Amino acid sequence: MIERYHLPALMASTAVHVAACVDSELARAQMTARRVGAALACSSHRDLPGNVDAAIVAVPNEDHADVAAELLRAGVHVLVEKPMAVDVVECDRMMAAASSTGTVLAVGHDFRHFPIATFARHLFAAGALGPVRAVDVRQTAGTRWPACSPRALMPAAGGGVLLSFGIHLLDLMSWWFGDLHPVRYSDDAAGGVEADCSCDCVLSNGAPVHLELSRRRTLRDTFVVRCERGTIELGLYEPAIVHLTLPSGGCRLAGFVPDAAFTRAPMQTVFRRQLSDFIDAIHEQRKPLVGATEGRRAVELVQACYRLRRSLRQPWDFPEAYGVPATASRSHAG
Amino acid sequence: MIERYHLPALMASTAVHVAACVDSELARAQMTARRVGAALACSSHRDLPGNVDAAIVAVPNEDHADVAAELLRAGVHVLVEKPMAVDVVECDRMMAAASSTGTVLAVGHDFRHFPIATFARHLFAAGALGPVRAVDVRQTAGTRWPACSPRALMPAAGGGVLLSFGIHLLDLMSWWFGDLHPVRYSDDAAGGVEADCSCDCVLSNGAPVHLELSRRRTLRDTFVVRCERGTIELGLYEPAIVHLTLPSGGCRLAGFVPDAAFTRAPMQTVFRRQLSDFIDAIHEQRKPLVGATEGRRAVELVQACYRLRRSLRQPWDFPEAYGVPATASRSHAG
Repeated sequence: MIERYHLPALMASTAVHVAACVDSELARAQMTARRVGAALACSSHRDLPGNVDAAIVAVPNEDHADVAAELLRAGVHVLVEKPMAVDVVECDRMMAAASSTGTVLAVGHDFRHFPIATFARHLFAAGALGPVRAVDVRQTAGTRWPACSPRALMPAAGGGVLLSFGIHLLDLMSWWFGDLHPVRYSDDAAGGVEADCSCDCVLSNGAPVHLELSRRRTLRDTFVVRCERGTIELGLYEPAIVHLTLPSGGCRLAGFVPDAAFTRAPMQTVFRRQLSDFIDAIHEQRKPLVGATEGRRAVELVQACYRLRRSLRQPWDFPEAYGVPATASRSHAG
Repeated sequence: MIERYHLPALMASTAVHVAACVDSELARAQMTARRVGAALACSSHRDLPGNVDAAIVAVPNEDHADVAAELLRAGVHVLVEKPMAVDVVECDRMMAAASSTGTVLAVGHDFRHFPIATFARHLFAAGALGPVRAVDVRQTAGTRWPACSPRALMPAAGGGVLLSFGIHLLDLMSWWFGDLHPVRYSDDAAGGVEADCSCDCVLSNGAPVHLELSRRRTLRDTFVVRCERGTIELGLYEPAIVHLTLPSGGCRLAGFVPDAAFTRAPMQTVFRRQLSDFIDAIHEQRKPLVGATEGRRAVELVQACYRLRRSLRQPWDFPEAYGVPATASRSHAG
């Protein structure tokens, strides 16, 4: 992650200089430091204060709060990967640390920097399609994201596909539509972390939101937002196709949000924009696009879902499908 | 026109049989009749009643009224090319003829059958972009339209580029936005028919509409419709690109209206749809999509423009540009 996305953005920026690389494996930190010309390579974030003004924290989820809070308390601005932390108590601790030193705490919800997300934000803000009536989003949340540790799959990571992928969608929807209220949630965690989940929420106007994520099934990878004056389908990944269907006549517009830089290099562009928003927030002493409030809200939503957890029905929960009488006991809780 | 567009549509239709071909040059009528298997070839529309149920009238503009009215009075349904006639008096005569026999009188404003026009109609009807604030449309109205007679360029044709091309745009805007009121009009007719014109209207809500057409300059070939909640640019010709710009942030969507048949064969599809609307209107005893009321309204708008006619300024109207003192007399009326 750092290597493939954050580092290229850092190297491309004329506003920053990479002063230090940290990795629990010192050899890896040293190798990266040599590659990017950083003066310092170390195995603990505790060596950073005094050597850097700002840090990108992309350690495992369960360490976000400790690492970020220590840096913030030492006056280092922090861009922390999403999820901001594994629970809101930790988020609050990070926020307290940031406000004690007036440092910027940004959260890496990079999906907000996708052109289609910005377009959707403006479209819904302009009220072009009228009030939202229903939202349905499905995401194939496979393993295209690079990681060098299996820790994200351990229960200590705080959650699975919802916390690592779904949180992007929850954040986007909060940004576009305002508050979301979870009402039903099922997953296949069974004591580990979930690879599949299904979540139902309502918006403040009562409109239902259905969200489905899977690491093992291929889903649609779009938001379908039905509004009073039309339905818009927004692609989640690049190339992010937009389909606008008008209520009458089945009339449809197919398009995309033109953005030359993004078309040339999607993820690089997104991470550059995220980095430059973080840097500008520091210089201009303003909130970043995704600050601690937004990062915390997303974590809070995930936790609210987990509190409603029921087990997803699995094939073995349908004995009748295998010729076993329907009276046979079922193991699912739902 | 007949040959390139109407005939292929007629031949492709299973709902009609071409019974007769009429051309003032009998040899041409006979040749076409042989090609399409029509039993009758004749040089006058007066031979049609009794031999056909419906006719497509694509004679020169100034003959539309005479030919169509005689056919309608004889009980023949008519699809007349646009402009419906060269003035509203003739339109009224045609309408009287149609209502005396209860025949269908459809007008060939084929632009209404373009997918983008249908999409725009639904989009504006849904009020997605809010009230219209300004419209600006420019059309390169060259000679891509086939014709075998130069009569359309003669003053007797009733007008030039506005009557032959601009009338499509006036019809589309009336369809999308309701009444248009011309307030200013200039062209280069100078006693002949205009090759260039510039027209300003207002919509009923006071929004200004600027329309410019040229046979000699290459223009943008799009409608730009600025609304309260966004600006949409609609392409006039295939591929008809749509650009939607939101008021905030310059966020933009680029797209097109997907229509597989149209993409494969644009004009053929449009003429097939126009023909099948005409035939359905006859069978279902309903008004066609573009009936006499709509055809007449477009002619009325053109006439209203011509009544406001001023001369477009020409290069020779700017003697100062050629080093002649600005006090030299100018020939333009505007």
